[in-house]
Amino acid sequence: MADRRAADDPVRIGLLGRGTVGGAFVKLLEDRAPAVGSATAAKVEISGVLTTSEGDFEEILAGSDVIVELMGGVTTAREHVLAALRAGKPVITANKQLLAQYGAELFAAADEAGVQLRFEAAVAGVVPVIRVVQESFSAVEFNKVFGIVNGTTNFILSEMASTGASYEDVLARAQELGYAEADPTDDVNGADAAAKMAILARLAFHTAVDFEQVPFEGIESVQPDDLAYAKELGLSLKLLGVAERFENGITVRVFPCFLYPGHPLSPIEGPFNAVMVEAPEITEVTMSGPGAGGLQTAAAVLGDLVTVISGDAPVHRAENDLPILSDVESSFYLHLEVADVPGVLAQVAKMLSDSGISVKSVVQKGIGNDARLVMVVHRCPESRFMEAVEEIAGLDSLRSSPRFIRVIEEVFV
Amino acid sequence: MADRRAADDPVRIGLLGRGTVGGAFVKLLEDRAPAVGSATAAKVEISGVLTTSEGDFEEILAGSDVIVELMGGVTTAREHVLAALRAGKPVITANKQLLAQYGAELFAAADEAGVQLRFEAAVAGVVPVIRVVQESFSAVEFNKVFGIVNGTTNFILSEMASTGASYEDVLARAQELGYAEADPTDDVNGADAAAKMAILARLAFHTAVDFEQVPFEGIESVQPDDLAYAKELGLSLKLLGVAERFENGITVRVFPCFLYPGHPLSPIEGPFNAVMVEAPEITEVTMSGPGAGGLQTAAAVLGDLVTVISGDAPVHRAENDLPILSDVESSFYLHLEVADVPGVLAQVAKMLSDSGISVKSVVQKGIGNDARLVMVVHRCPESRFMEAVEEIAGLDSLRSSPRFIRVIEEVFV
Repeated sequence: MADRRAADDPVRIGLLGRGTVGGAFVKLLEDRAPAVGSATAAKVEISGVLTTSEGDFEEILAGSDVIVELMGGVTTAREHVLAALRAGKPVITANKQLLAQYGAELFAAADEAGVQLRFEAAVAGVVPVIRVVQESFSAVEFNKVFGIVNGTTNFILSEMASTGASYEDVLARAQELGYAEADPTDDVNGADAAAKMAILARLAFHTAVDFEQVPFEGIESVQPDDLAYAKELGLSLKLLGVAERFENGITVRVFPCFLYPGHPLSPIEGPFNAVMVEAPEITEVTMSGPGAGGLQTAAAVLGDLVTVISGDAPVHRAENDLPILSDVESSFYLHLEVADVPGVLAQVAKMLSDSGISVKSVVQKGIGNDARLVMVVHRCPESRFMEAVEEIAGLDSLRSSPRFIRVIEEVFV
Repeated sequence: MADRRAADDPVRIGLLGRGTVGGAFVKLLEDRAPAVGSATAAKVEISGVLTTSEGDFEEILAGSDVIVELMGGVTTAREHVLAALRAGKPVITANKQLLAQYGAELFAAADEAGVQLRFEAAVAGVVPVIRVVQESFSAVEFNKVFGIVNGTTNFILSEMASTGASYEDVLARAQELGYAEADPTDDVNGADAAAKMAILARLAFHTAVDFEQVPFEGIESVQPDDLAYAKELGLSLKLLGVAERFENGITVRVFPCFLYPGHPLSPIEGPFNAVMVEAPEITEVTMSGPGAGGLQTAAAVLGDLVTVISGDAPVHRAENDLPILSDVESSFYLHLEVADVPGVLAQVAKMLSDSGISVKSVVQKGIGNDARLVMVVHRCPESRFMEAVEEIAGLDSLRSSPRFIRVIEEVFV
């Protein structure tokens, strides 16, 4: 779309809606202005904002090059998005219900006008599943697209499984933490996930799928003892959206479902989303990340905006000239074979401690006359650890050279 | 690039190299011709093929609109790719060493000519990490990009951990299974991963990173007892590529590394790749899938080709008119509260068996005078299961309505 503007004119964004996501988008666009400028070779400015109390849609539309719809709801949003597309303006939206209910009309309007309609933020938050399905795998024939597409319910099920608490208690906790809305109906009954699956199935199978065609079940009736029994059977419970292609048609559904350990979706805990796509030529690809949050949704919108403005793929330019550092901090596993004499552990521990390196865990085992001393030490500059190992290597009681391997200490969720 | 051709002219592909990946690409392009046609609104044909025994590069270049480089090696590949870019032809390549060693020159040539240079297949096989970093997150400031970017070594480490076998024995097995090359040096010593990390770090941090600047360690000296001790400490071993941004610069390195359980990369087993990207506005996003294989690599190349031809994002059209099916097969968890009378299990089992439903596992427990009967049944048509449940619900010995939840039976590696 760069062609339509004079080279120095800024790209004018008409923003519809300035709630949580809209506000986060405005701030992110400001914070990332240099990166946006470099990726698009253009200046971007917000030329008008429509809220319930200010702004005139027709004026905003006339004065903008791109419309970003973050107002939510379907009635007014539908009218404005259609008007923008028909006026030849690309539209970016995060509105899953709009696409799930009026997709046919909106996609046809975009196609007719020859402008982009992008909506990464509508499904799986910042996890780039829309782009991957539509672009990376545009010529792939999918067998199956499925996953955890609602973070609220995944948080609730994870909490119920780990604490044994009831659905009601965990829902209340999720509301306190901001993972569930005051009215959580659409999340917990599966409607939100069904809207997302309608969109995903439509794109993956190139066929019309509307929200009304997606049967959904929620998690409201899951009992703590279902989760307890499931644990005995080695199962974990997720609310899944599943779109599958058969010889004679497709199915698109949302239901709570048990998974065996080893399934790529079974370790996804907390308010996360994860989507798997399957096809013969790609086998399976899994993508996961935080499901929502204002900032994450805004980041997905911004990614779409940069693509709309830059048109073709961004060219890589090594604009930063960052030095490459050699010494960083790491945690280490250290393996020592020592003569089983009293005091070796103390000696090694002192050497480490004198170097300012603290020990996190130790395993010691006798093997014949010798002992293996295996430990994990906390993060320290690698150069300091190497010096300490060199010193330890000089100990008479060592039977062979010390062995060490780095350890990532972070423990997720 | 569609603009440069007359509407009905096919897009001519000049293919350099026809080995495993090149052959798979030719076949996939043929198989997916309808999908490619629909995504690009163009016919695509291979107009020339260069192998060591046939074809003339200059002729092929002159007679093609796009060059697909799958010949490997760096010397001739570099000359041809540069020549193509300078001639204004977009290039798609799967050649990681070429990009890691001559990236600066190649990206500059593409930028100068204003044509696309795409290379999804060069990093993490079919896992679309290049597109996600360059496009979805083009305005994101990454803190860290890291992961398992070599499937051979991940297979070897997984096998060593699960079987206790030595590095040498597992390597031999990997070679038999086709997961390791006859000469596995570049995989096992970390050089292959280092080339991929040079490319990823360059894109993520918009800075020049060459292969020579990436220190790498391999897995050749990992001992079975390191893995055994690690298990006692709750750790799993992966060969990681890590690119990280600090206040004063970046680091890009490859090394074997222990992970705690709960880390998103710790469940990645076998010949898989997985990449995590971290930034404040996206928190963390993880992508995983098969690391290589001719077909998977060809699929990544084809995704790039469709993007190069279609230019802007593909417009969604609901061209297929697939029926939405209602009855499919599922496996189920079934929870029954029954009076603890002998024979209820037998009765329920008979009802299921008469409906052709087979039981996979059962847990039975007494609670006061009652018992809970919890089972998982194998896949059957859902309608048939619902009928059986209705019949079971009519049993006098039942204390409350039966509860059931679907189960996904597939167990992944």
